[in-house]
Amino acid sequence: MFESLQSRLVKLKDNRVFEFAVVAVIIISALEIGAKTYELPASAMSLTALLDVFITVFFLLEISIRFLADDDKRHFFKKGWNIFDTLVVVISLIPVQDSEMALLARLVRVFRVLRMVSVVPELRVLINSLLKALPQLGYVLLLMFIIFYIYAAIGSYIFADINPDLWGDIAISMLTLFRIMTFEDWTDIQYETMDVYGWSWLYYMSFIFLTAFAFLNMVIGIVVNVMEQEHARERLLKNPEDKQPTIADLHNEIIALKALLQQQSSSAASAVDDKKTPAAD
Amino acid sequence: MFESLQSRLVKLKDNRVFEFAVVAVIIISALEIGAKTYELPASAMSLTALLDVFITVFFLLEISIRFLADDDKRHFFKKGWNIFDTLVVVISLIPVQDSEMALLARLVRVFRVLRMVSVVPELRVLINSLLKALPQLGYVLLLMFIIFYIYAAIGSYIFADINPDLWGDIAISMLTLFRIMTFEDWTDIQYETMDVYGWSWLYYMSFIFLTAFAFLNMVIGIVVNVMEQEHARERLLKNPEDKQPTIADLHNEIIALKALLQQQSSSAASAVDDKKTPAAD
Amino acid sequence: MFESLQSRLVKLKDNRVFEFAVVAVIIISALEIGAKTYELPASAMSLTALLDVFITVFFLLEISIRFLADDDKRHFFKKGWNIFDTLVVVISLIPVQDSEMALLARLVRVFRVLRMVSVVPELRVLINSLLKALPQLGYVLLLMFIIFYIYAAIGSYIFADINPDLWGDIAISMLTLFRIMTFEDWTDIQYETMDVYGWSWLYYMSFIFLTAFAFLNMVIGIVVNVMEQEHARERLLKNPEDKQPTIADLHNEIIALKALLQQQSSSAASAVDDKKTPAAD
Amino acid sequence: MFESLQSRLVKLKDNRVFEFAVVAVIIISALEIGAKTYELPASAMSLTALLDVFITVFFLLEISIRFLADDDKRHFFKKGWNIFDTLVVVISLIPVQDSEMALLARLVRVFRVLRMVSVVPELRVLINSLLKALPQLGYVLLLMFIIFYIYAAIGSYIFADINPDLWGDIAISMLTLFRIMTFEDWTDIQYETMDVYGWSWLYYMSFIFLTAFAFLNMVIGIVVNVMEQEHARERLLKNPEDKQPTIADLHNEIIALKALLQQQSSSAASAVDDKKTPAAD
Repeated sequence: MFESLQSRLVKLKDNRVFEFAVVAVIIISALEIGAKTYELPASAMSLTALLDVFITVFFLLEISIRFLADDDKRHFFKKGWNIFDTLVVVISLIPVQDSEMALLARLVRVFRVLRMVSVVPELRVLINSLLKALPQLGYVLLLMFIIFYIYAAIGSYIFADINPDLWGDIAISMLTLFRIMTFEDWTDIQYETMDVYGWSWLYYMSFIFLTAFAFLNMVIGIVVNVMEQEHARERLLKNPEDKQPTIADLHNEIIALKALLQQQSSSAASAVDDKKTPAAD
Repeated sequence: MFESLQSRLVKLKDNRVFEFAVVAVIIISALEIGAKTYELPASAMSLTALLDVFITVFFLLEISIRFLADDDKRHFFKKGWNIFDTLVVVISLIPVQDSEMALLARLVRVFRVLRMVSVVPELRVLINSLLKALPQLGYVLLLMFIIFYIYAAIGSYIFADINPDLWGDIAISMLTLFRIMTFEDWTDIQYETMDVYGWSWLYYMSFIFLTAFAFLNMVIGIVVNVMEQEHARERLLKNPEDKQPTIADLHNEIIALKALLQQQSSSAASAVDDKKTPAAD
Repeated sequence: MFESLQSRLVKLKDNRVFEFAVVAVIIISALEIGAKTYELPASAMSLTALLDVFITVFFLLEISIRFLADDDKRHFFKKGWNIFDTLVVVISLIPVQDSEMALLARLVRVFRVLRMVSVVPELRVLINSLLKALPQLGYVLLLMFIIFYIYAAIGSYIFADINPDLWGDIAISMLTLFRIMTFEDWTDIQYETMDVYGWSWLYYMSFIFLTAFAFLNMVIGIVVNVMEQEHARERLLKNPEDKQPTIADLHNEIIALKALLQQQSSSAASAVDDKKTPAAD
Repeated sequence: MFESLQSRLVKLKDNRVFEFAVVAVIIISALEIGAKTYELPASAMSLTALLDVFITVFFLLEISIRFLADDDKRHFFKKGWNIFDTLVVVISLIPVQDSEMALLARLVRVFRVLRMVSVVPELRVLINSLLKALPQLGYVLLLMFIIFYIYAAIGSYIFADINPDLWGDIAISMLTLFRIMTFEDWTDIQYETMDVYGWSWLYYMSFIFLTAFAFLNMVIGIVVNVMEQEHARERLLKNPEDKQPTIADLHNEIIALKALLQQQSSSAASAVDDKKTPAAD
């Protein structure tokens, strides 16, 4: 009895109509979120309240079906995307009374749109390839943070008196340096400090070279690398029977060929020997 | 009789003088469009009216020749470039009376310049490689749209009261976020919201990291990938006799070699056997 | 007598001291050009006049030595760099009387600094690789020009009345579009036209996508491609004895191996046949 | 006795607890530098003074341990990172009396944060790959400097009277050109000179094309190249037993195979000859 229920849920889960229904409800949920940012008449407001209940119930049902259809219940919560989906659905279930929490509840509902990523496989691949690049990018970001920290410390030591709004302490200085890295009105900042310290163009120019140029390039290098690996892996996953012989395969075959030849050579030699001995008689 | 007309049209179509004439008329049409943006004396205005008739007739003739010269008439409108050319020519034939439509007629004439792309093969290759990248880019754009949508929703929930011109509703917020992505005076927007919400630098910095950095790199990764494929395909199309042997070819030949050796080995063995048996007599 | 002069000139030309002297004079000439942009005392002015004569004479001598040392005089002016060097030297020889021409004479002297490129081989390689990318970049630039032209025509048709300084005619519009492509205060232009035409954000966004994003990436694709070719070519030129066997080489060797085996096989067969026939007796 | 001390120091140096302690002290030192940029109460100030002594003593001890643990004392100062570490520690030992030097002492302490790079191996790899790209980047930077110099000379010759703050002399002009390269408010500068010299958009556009576009791409090309080499080298260093057979290896083996075949062929022939000769009897 339970078995048949599960198999029917699996069928439902893999049904294309069901899949499209999920995507459709996510889009409706996104449109509702967008609509709420406009001034709405009272009638529309009550409609969105109804819609909200429907979406919450639908998502709750969908996640339950996916959970019940799963063969290995413990395995279900080991997949990051399942945890993410469940969290988004469960948090939006928490009732909100006071107006303070209303904004927070609204924000949580916004993340429902991200469920699009967990439902569309092609988007999941993109996010996974980004996450895979993170460990490599991590050290680049750490190095960048160190450079930011050192420049921010120097900046707030020297320029704090010139403009405390930009160089007041190390946190404000790091924000200012991020602004300089995006080239956003950075010359205004530069001209201001150059009036006091004529050499300060060196500070800005070296910082721009170190971060914007060298590091952006490093990031490109790593991402290009990861993208290539991802493409290669996908190609292999798609058609594994299409697997091209590698140089290593050739290597093994040539070794086999050599062994065959040597064996043949020795057997021929022994055959000749066999022949020779009687002939020597 | 019809046959001979078609063959003569094919000859005309492939004539280099005719090809240059088409390019020349497109350039004249472009110059006329440019000239119309300046204040022109009445005499020049009547000249452009004449020129306009000439260009329209010439393009009509050219497309007719290309259509009649085609062997398979139904096949003609299956090529995207042919449809594009015909549309541009046909729409500019529609007579315009009222002044309202005059601007629209002018705009359609502007797209005649795009015919340059359909006529010059090298430009067609460039556009085709861009179109080929679109399906891959499509999901990146979708993911980017989702990120824009979520940040725009959060932005208009929280910052709408600070500056309705920038964060009034979700559509305006998305435009503001596009501006932030291009680093255009984004710190002005940031400082404005930071006066109310001190943590809002996190909103901007995370958005910039997610879009400008990570995604621009993704796009680069995909385009580099497509460009390489396009180059490889072109090289193969240009000189197919130049086709380099692949590792797979080597693999096949080594297998053939092994088969030959094994056959030889067995025949040698049987020969030796043949020899042995009489010798055993 | 003339022979010995030429051989002595060749020796002089290839002398490292002479090479360093040329580089040193180019640097002195660059410093002189830089010094002239400052307010100089009269004594320094007369010094630069003397220096100018010395540099002109030195460059004249150097180019003469290089010309006389060349074995094939007609070949000398077929190299682009030689023509460039000679032009720069000869033009700076033309005497300047009136003050109008004085600025032009100054400008020509500035191009002497470019002689650094013709003298340092590594810089020549960089410029050559850039020039090699030009034919491929040419069509991208043409396509970009067509897009600029179409958008500029549309822009000046529709926005000319809003701000003639930015959209007055097609030339001004193209300059404005170049500014938009560099993201320089482009939202100011956008907000101005959006007050009249609400949809005009589509015009800007589509333009930015078409040019800044798609095309910059195309350029990267082409340049990466050219750089790789250039690196591969240089590596081969540097150590040709280091030439790695290619898959094609392997292919040829396996074919040779097969031929050898087949020949061996047939000779073995005939030998067996030879053996068989007497045994059949 | 000394031997056992050294071996114990080596054990201490390679101890993971010791490694983490070093990283922890560097982080504490960084936090102290950051804290000093804020207004601190007197008690916190005396704490940082104490902390400063502790950090200086700890780093002195650590560098001494690393030096004493090294087998080859002369080899120690041949590694760039060791020299850097020692310099940072030694300079912070110099006592500072007058207030003038206090700022300098503070700045030197900032560079302690850079010790993070010398301690974390992954960051060292990043810096090394950047340094490896420098010789190749060097000539690109030289070419860029030449272009900047020429444009700056032309700019200060022609535009100096229009705006001396931007084009006064060659140094100021180069700073202005760097600003233009980052697209920072460059159109303001352009419109100012276009009022006097209508053609000056050509000056800016050609400069932007030469530097921002062509050169940024060149840098990308070189860095991508270096990153790939670095990745390949690391992969090889990590698992050398995983070394894939190359085409060259295959080449050698096919040659060996051919030699074997030829030898076999000749021995078979001689065997047949041996056989033939008696058969000819």
